[in-house]
Amino acid sequence: MGLNITEKIISSHLITGKMEPGSEIGLKIDQTLTQDATGTMAYLQFEAMGIAKVQTELSVSYVDHNTLQMGFRNPDDHQYLRTVAAKYGVVFSPAGTGICHQLHLENFAKPGATLIGSDSHTPTAGGLGSLAMGAGGLSVALAMAGQPYSIPMPKVVKVELTGKLTGWATAKDIILHLLGLLTVKGGVGKVFEFGGKGVETLTVPERAVITNMGAELGATTSLFPSDKQTEKFLKAMGREEDFSELIADADATYSDTVVINLSELEPLVAQPHMPDRVVSVKSLAGLKVSQSAIGSCTNSSYSDLKTTVLILKDNQLPQGVDLMISPGSKQVLKMLASEGLIGPLLDSGARLLECTCGPCIGMGGSPVSAGVSVRTFNRNFEGRSGTQDAKVYLASPQTAAKLALAGEFTDPATWGTPPEKIEFPAEIPSIRHLFIFPPENDEKVEIVRGPNIIPLESFSALPEIITSEVRLKVGDDITTDHILPAGAQITALRSNIPAISEYIFSRVDENFVSRMKNSDNGIILGGENYGQGSSREHAALGPRHLGVVAVIVKSLARIHRANLINFGILPLVLSNKSDYDKLSEGSGLSLETTSLTPGGVAEMTTTDGLKIKVENDLSEKELAIILAGGLLNYVGRK
Amino acid sequence: MGLNITEKIISSHLITGKMEPGSEIGLKIDQTLTQDATGTMAYLQFEAMGIAKVQTELSVSYVDHNTLQMGFRNPDDHQYLRTVAAKYGVVFSPAGTGICHQLHLENFAKPGATLIGSDSHTPTAGGLGSLAMGAGGLSVALAMAGQPYSIPMPKVVKVELTGKLTGWATAKDIILHLLGLLTVKGGVGKVFEFGGKGVETLTVPERAVITNMGAELGATTSLFPSDKQTEKFLKAMGREEDFSELIADADATYSDTVVINLSELEPLVAQPHMPDRVVSVKSLAGLKVSQSAIGSCTNSSYSDLKTTVLILKDNQLPQGVDLMISPGSKQVLKMLASEGLIGPLLDSGARLLECTCGPCIGMGGSPVSAGVSVRTFNRNFEGRSGTQDAKVYLASPQTAAKLALAGEFTDPATWGTPPEKIEFPAEIPSIRHLFIFPPENDEKVEIVRGPNIIPLESFSALPEIITSEVRLKVGDDITTDHILPAGAQITALRSNIPAISEYIFSRVDENFVSRMKNSDNGIILGGENYGQGSSREHAALGPRHLGVVAVIVKSLARIHRANLINFGILPLVLSNKSDYDKLSEGSGLSLETTSLTPGGVAEMTTTDGLKIKVENDLSEKELAIILAGGLLNYVGRK
Repeated sequence: MGLNITEKIISSHLITGKMEPGSEIGLKIDQTLTQDATGTMAYLQFEAMGIAKVQTELSVSYVDHNTLQMGFRNPDDHQYLRTVAAKYGVVFSPAGTGICHQLHLENFAKPGATLIGSDSHTPTAGGLGSLAMGAGGLSVALAMAGQPYSIPMPKVVKVELTGKLTGWATAKDIILHLLGLLTVKGGVGKVFEFGGKGVETLTVPERAVITNMGAELGATTSLFPSDKQTEKFLKAMGREEDFSELIADADATYSDTVVINLSELEPLVAQPHMPDRVVSVKSLAGLKVSQSAIGSCTNSSYSDLKTTVLILKDNQLPQGVDLMISPGSKQVLKMLASEGLIGPLLDSGARLLECTCGPCIGMGGSPVSAGVSVRTFNRNFEGRSGTQDAKVYLASPQTAAKLALAGEFTDPATWGTPPEKIEFPAEIPSIRHLFIFPPENDEKVEIVRGPNIIPLESFSALPEIITSEVRLKVGDDITTDHILPAGAQITALRSNIPAISEYIFSRVDENFVSRMKNSDNGIILGGENYGQGSSREHAALGPRHLGVVAVIVKSLARIHRANLINFGILPLVLSNKSDYDKLSEGSGLSLETTSLTPGGVAEMTTTDGLKIKVENDLSEKELAIILAGGLLNYVGRK
Repeated sequence: MGLNITEKIISSHLITGKMEPGSEIGLKIDQTLTQDATGTMAYLQFEAMGIAKVQTELSVSYVDHNTLQMGFRNPDDHQYLRTVAAKYGVVFSPAGTGICHQLHLENFAKPGATLIGSDSHTPTAGGLGSLAMGAGGLSVALAMAGQPYSIPMPKVVKVELTGKLTGWATAKDIILHLLGLLTVKGGVGKVFEFGGKGVETLTVPERAVITNMGAELGATTSLFPSDKQTEKFLKAMGREEDFSELIADADATYSDTVVINLSELEPLVAQPHMPDRVVSVKSLAGLKVSQSAIGSCTNSSYSDLKTTVLILKDNQLPQGVDLMISPGSKQVLKMLASEGLIGPLLDSGARLLECTCGPCIGMGGSPVSAGVSVRTFNRNFEGRSGTQDAKVYLASPQTAAKLALAGEFTDPATWGTPPEKIEFPAEIPSIRHLFIFPPENDEKVEIVRGPNIIPLESFSALPEIITSEVRLKVGDDITTDHILPAGAQITALRSNIPAISEYIFSRVDENFVSRMKNSDNGIILGGENYGQGSSREHAALGPRHLGVVAVIVKSLARIHRANLINFGILPLVLSNKSDYDKLSEGSGLSLETTSLTPGGVAEMTTTDGLKIKVENDLSEKELAIILAGGLLNYVGRK
């Protein structure tokens, strides 16, 4: 039986497990990438493993998130990332060089290679046939240490593209169409593999738009074949030697197939506040626009920005419309400059920002109150723009530029002749010299840690008997934002667990931290769906730092459960939900950890002698990880 | 008797007073400028005056300070500034168009005109012979309302330039030399007027570097003649019609003369943390550099940046040195782009930021902890960079670029052949179309106020008898930072007096605000030098909003005193300093305001019957202003 592309890459990287959907597989990882917001913790974790060099073929550390540098913490992080990269054999990309996914596509991604990155849009590299997945910082650290990356074997869905984009429809409209069709939950546990005749019509940068935003489907990743287009792209980037053909076997099978006729697509937008609330641009004609923003890892390639400038050229933005443009890399900006496109961009009234993530992650560029902002980004969650009541629409660069010039949504039928497809020029300037490659000899490299960068502490193994108290009792639907609030002030503390721990549950109970500090340890008592929301590891690391040994809940969110395990906190579920009412802040509890079994039931005893039954759904390995005091200890002990 | 340039401009604009040093004069103001950080309050004050149109020849509202837009407040401010400008006849310059002083020089400044601006570096326009002064927002609002601007007639000091700059010495080194000579207090009450043969050798952008940073001398302003260089500059800017010759009479007199031989100057730097701590670059050879920043209203002209790029070209920054470049205007950036200079800039590893104030005002670009940053800016106060322990050195673009490439201070003797002086190209691209000129008909203009923009409240006149209590007793040397802390979070509230008032004295006594809210009014009791530091009006507006009617102190700082008067708070000085010890928080005090006389002594009575003598140094007009409830009421009543 033939293999699809996903199976081909997995089978050539399979270290443990079987390629049966749902069963756990361990994959050899060829490449890793990190960005600065998640990277500092990943490298602190790597350092804690005590390994001399990264074990991957290539690991790259990009700085693209916290580049505004409002205070010493961000530049200190950059300095740490640069020096730790040199020490351990990681390539470093300084602030302002570009956005990690755009740079990785242009410079390092390889067909057939496995890549994990501590950023959810790592699947961008799937645009040239790399099996590229977003992961937590600890997973990336483990991959750098040579450990296999464990995932459930995904289902592989074929997205069959037929026809050809026409008019003002673009690659962005393909992924928006798919999001409208399948919703943001439609990709969980799946890889979307693109095939069909329509694939041949899409360039690698166009494919990368689609695989990038495939993350919004909740997919494991998205993947294009490596074909003539891929070869052309790699040649343009001066990397012919990285090309290898990678296509599905003729008799490959898929768990499902979705067919999209490209010829039928029209310009689309995702409405506030979810990437799957997709409608046609024309259906919103008349809606006033106060801002557009073009850039981000989704749509900041040379072709995206050249198209943008050609639309802006000889036009001027109306009063009160703000248009911000963030090129994806210095290479892109150099290409625009060499073609004389900076002048027309500025003359339109547009603002040229640095080659970073910028407004996409709310690092500046917030719209006016209740403003309508059309952005070429991948997410439009409420408040993400920095303006709580702003209405963010996601669209292609062509659409964003056209609507900015009009000052309102208009029917694409009135936009005139669509621009020609942008081809790469004959000569493309390299920016490879701007990466800092690690030295042959690292003896002289000193890792520089600013005062905000604190090495990861060593957690101890769980004792045989836990004697503790409930230090906090919370209700249902506690999110990781409740556990650890977001915001620039707190996010700047990501490399400093002691400091960031001061904010644990600060919005829920301002005395929680001081209670924990006055105790040896503590237990959190929660309701249903405890720990939902973002994947931030710090919502487990912080409590663990403060001495939390267990959370006892009615039910638990999936990613937070994994983080609790990774950092050695017992995730326990009440066998009888009514016991929740029998416990309160201050209730004393004891548990013999030796009585815990994978997936079993254990009994806790209160100081009043009450017996409370708690269950777990831990695998044998997961239980061992917790008992060892977390994954770092577990890996270290093996 | 002949006149110097300053006297010529003053005499042609004199409305009240006599040209005798120290005596108060009232000047007709031809032009005003504002920037966004101070501008919102200036326009709220202008609105409160109820005047239909600005009465100046030209008023321009620039957005260059708070352009990062971390949240809705900054873009809402920009929107307010744009719409209020259209309503009242003010030219508006959108965010990203450039830095106010650079833009004003290029587009609007005129020889012989008077200009006041709500930014301390307004004297930049003195580089082409405009009498340009920094002022508080309320003064600018009054000038827009057609009121004369009152200052004490300055002494005029001649700075006689002889010889010619050689080697790597630049205009920046002229003003650094002068700062080293005269110190930051050396210019108080003075205008520095430049003359001598050396003047002819300096272009207008070079002259503007000097007049810009003349602000650091504490001078009223600095001024160059309008001559052939001025004509050449205005012609290059497409503004020949704005040229008029303006030179001192041959027999003009000056209060003092300083001679500088340009031929003897060498590259200089101001050391941390004061612009007058000037030494030669070579004397610091060997000191490691972690960052350079080129730009700001001091050094961001076409010639500054072209020189910079020519130095960077074909070179690369060493690892760990961060170089940030902020062009002064889109015109400058367009000129660089059209000459193919963006590529070499990026290839060196430098970071291209937006055309705004940026790192100069701590809006991003903070150095690493304890970092050495060489900046072409005008101020290097401790902590201003955003990194408290950073060491900021002020230097020319040439020096900043050279030291960044070397990664350390080096002797300019080793720098090789100095670059040629940059001349303007034959054709200069205009960006005049990017300014929003006010409409002929403002009927349809609606002023848009985001939720953070609160119209200025109306303050009531002082009652005949003040009955109040001491609500706060503080010690000596209270700064305006104590009264109202700085920082991005609080600064974003500058257009919202009720909100910003919540932070009044928040770092001194967190219960002060609630005490004021629970009272009808209150008095602050202070020690020596109360209100020193920045000129922020909000340190008077906030207390007034909370109900403070008087401050009683041992002594008072000059600018804060003026702000207290402007917003109707009585500044009283204890006749017997020992009375300070007799009063404490909660002491009841009453005062018959009808007993107050200009410069006189009045008696306050405590609830215990104690008599406390208080003096004032108010002029008749100042006392009338306070009794009326502040300057806005006073002007309105006239």
